[in-house]
Amino acid sequence: MSKAGMMNTVAVGIAVQSDWENRQFSSSLSLNVRRLFEFLLQFESATRSKLAVLNEKLSVLERKLEFLEAQFSTAVNPS
Amino acid sequence: MSKAGMMNTVAVGIAVQSDWENRQFSSSLSLNVRRLFEFLLQFESATRSKLAVLNEKLSVLERKLEFLEAQFSTAVNPS
Amino acid sequence: MSKAGMMNTVAVGIAVQSDWENRQFSSSLSLNVRRLFEFLLQFESATRSKLAVLNEKLSVLERKLEFLEAQFSTAVNPS
Repeated sequence: MSKAGMMNTVAVGIAVQSDWENRQFSSSLSLNVRRLFEFLLQFESATRSKLAVLNEKLSVLERKLEFLEAQFSTAVNPS
Repeated sequence: MSKAGMMNTVAVGIAVQSDWENRQFSSSLSLNVRRLFEFLLQFESATRSKLAVLNEKLSVLERKLEFLEAQFSTAVNPS
Repeated sequence: MSKAGMMNTVAVGIAVQSDWENRQFSSSLSLNVRRLFEFLLQFESATRSKLAVLNEKLSVLERKLEFLEAQFSTAVNPS
């Protein structure tokens, strides 16, 4: 093989190797981003449902307290 | 064109094509990461404000309950 | 240098440059994904602990309210 031919072969070899490494890297990065996204969606959904439960509990407590206040007020100041 | 010249042209063509695909891929991955980040920021901000609202409601409820406890205690055990 | 040799040199130069840019880009994208992930982990952990605190406060409030209800009920309807 001529010197130019060998340089050619080496250059193509480097390009292919580097391309392969880029693809490996991009593919693993892409996979991590997808996992991160799935984790985020799950977390967002879990948080939303936990906040809803807390809100519901709070509303129940508010109503109970108002009811007790009204009962107490009636007992202390009967009309 | 010589055989070496043709191989050269083909090699450059492959490198350019692969480079273009890498850029396309990187650019769409980069866009998804940015979207993910914006979603996360929005979610974080919404969660923070919802937690603050819940905390505020809870504090109001705590004060109301303490007040009712004090009133009840006075009514039951007048000094 | 022959024309083919010069084209060769230029092609290798372009490939190396493009490869270097790809690596720079991938490396900064990868860093941003890692930061995003760390931010998400921290946020998830902080949210979990804040929700636990809210839950605990709510439970205390529920018990206090039940206790007051029982006391009130006894005071109003002594057996």
